[in-house]
Amino acid sequence: MQPVCVAVDVNGGDFGSGTIVEGVLGALRQITIPCRIYLCGDHQEIVSALKSYDAIGFLENDVIRVEHCVQNITPMDVPTRVWKTKKDSSVIRSIVLQRNGVVQASLSAGDTRVIIGASIFLLGRKKGVPRPALSAFMPTINSRPCLLLDVGANLACRAEHLISFGLMGFEYVKQTLAIDKPRVTMLNVGQESSKGTKVIRDAARVLAKKCAGYDGFIEGSNILRGEADVVVCDGFVGNVFLKTCESIHLVAEAAVKDDLFLKQALRERMAVFNSENYGAVPLLGLHGIVFKAHGASSIKAITHAVKIAVMAASRRE
Amino acid sequence: MQPVCVAVDVNGGDFGSGTIVEGVLGALRQITIPCRIYLCGDHQEIVSALKSYDAIGFLENDVIRVEHCVQNITPMDVPTRVWKTKKDSSVIRSIVLQRNGVVQASLSAGDTRVIIGASIFLLGRKKGVPRPALSAFMPTINSRPCLLLDVGANLACRAEHLISFGLMGFEYVKQTLAIDKPRVTMLNVGQESSKGTKVIRDAARVLAKKCAGYDGFIEGSNILRGEADVVVCDGFVGNVFLKTCESIHLVAEAAVKDDLFLKQALRERMAVFNSENYGAVPLLGLHGIVFKAHGASSIKAITHAVKIAVMAASRRE
Repeated sequence: MQPVCVAVDVNGGDFGSGTIVEGVLGALRQITIPCRIYLCGDHQEIVSALKSYDAIGFLENDVIRVEHCVQNITPMDVPTRVWKTKKDSSVIRSIVLQRNGVVQASLSAGDTRVIIGASIFLLGRKKGVPRPALSAFMPTINSRPCLLLDVGANLACRAEHLISFGLMGFEYVKQTLAIDKPRVTMLNVGQESSKGTKVIRDAARVLAKKCAGYDGFIEGSNILRGEADVVVCDGFVGNVFLKTCESIHLVAEAAVKDDLFLKQALRERMAVFNSENYGAVPLLGLHGIVFKAHGASSIKAITHAVKIAVMAASRRE
Repeated sequence: MQPVCVAVDVNGGDFGSGTIVEGVLGALRQITIPCRIYLCGDHQEIVSALKSYDAIGFLENDVIRVEHCVQNITPMDVPTRVWKTKKDSSVIRSIVLQRNGVVQASLSAGDTRVIIGASIFLLGRKKGVPRPALSAFMPTINSRPCLLLDVGANLACRAEHLISFGLMGFEYVKQTLAIDKPRVTMLNVGQESSKGTKVIRDAARVLAKKCAGYDGFIEGSNILRGEADVVVCDGFVGNVFLKTCESIHLVAEAAVKDDLFLKQALRERMAVFNSENYGAVPLLGLHGIVFKAHGASSIKAITHAVKIAVMAASRRE
């Protein structure tokens, strides 16, 4: 049995390559299927990190391979063109490895625009997809999560983009959660058909015809209540929503901060809202599996991210 | 001492005039300063509601006055022109009463676009304000709330609008919370200066020069953490954020639903996130005090809304 291969960009995160390497090691100690991680970054830096975590054995056993990359991305680079100008950077290398069939998925905590640009040009979009979207499963008060897209790949969207997100979301939830006809909604400021911007109203009219699961507008207050299976929005709004949800557990804990028992009980039960526990979100609409992790990913977050990337890659085979 | 006078549109809410009238009565039973409420709507309907709640005494004592309005706003009306075409509707009458100096504030749970249009044309904008904004104080995990604007008056904004929101928010928080130099931030998908749309980056550059309290970009995850005193965004994003926060207490309660003791403790402590407990939000940038309540306002929400409208009107005198 061939191992599942995943490329990881060790330079993308805000906390340096040590955090990413340690996160990968955490995942490797938990994953039970044969897998191989390609660590893309500075060879010497990675090897000394592995040594310091007493994990050089992974290298010797070929569970980890190091892809030495010499270029760094700077604020002077045009993010969407980095795939062309900095082919020897860690984030681009990880996606090139995927294009070349060496790995089945890639993961980066780097700049979203760089990852999107490289994914579009190196892996290609699926037919009928004008723009790939970052999607995230949000927990709800029902047992069923809700897929939110876009959460940051496309800050400004035209109607055709939102329509495509709705259709992609419908298919993805149908497959992933095995729901017959997922309820697809569009995030808006009200539920009446006259509400919202022209772009949203135009997209809604088309989705109502094209998408079997289309179920109208949804307001911010009803997403976590579990009133939809798919929520479509532009990447700016989705990003704000996603990040706001990531602070919910802190707010709840703060509300009960004077009661340690209550606080502990709540922390355990609201762990689902802690971004460390989901780690990374997939880009939909591409020929290939690309995961984006938070820039501010902790070791624990990277561990989760690597685990879901390996899982997704293994399902694909 | 003259009573504080406030006009209330009884037709705006989703639950009919009975809910609004009952909400007003709840407020009148709690307010301790001399005040008078002008109920704008159908005379007969209002009087029979007052009778059914055993509250006709308020009418006899001149604490309530009824302003009979005969026109209804329909989905066929152009919201921003209703102030001109439906002068005899309850929402327009309440703002006309304010323009004529009869009342010092008005409150409606009606269509935001109607209220904004009427407020701009009947009351007028303050100097240097291209567009009034709906603003809401959000609770944070610090003791200090954070002012979010816009939360639904302007769905799409140009840079000049966002700049004006920042300046208005700075002044409003300075006055209302007596903070020397409120930290004014702009909601964005990241904190780096290259992040976000061109409109946001342009506005940020100007605010950095014009606003003494300007403190950079803020992400969705840091608002409820209390990392800003003012958060500027367009009305679409603000509306989604506000409504999402309104479901936080439900999410926390659902997380502990199997433990009744925990649930009750949490409900009390997270009451601050329940929209019923703040009731309505003010429109900033106008010559006059206009409050907008949720369309789906409950009796309790209207009671709170009337109380804060009376409070704001009394401070102004």
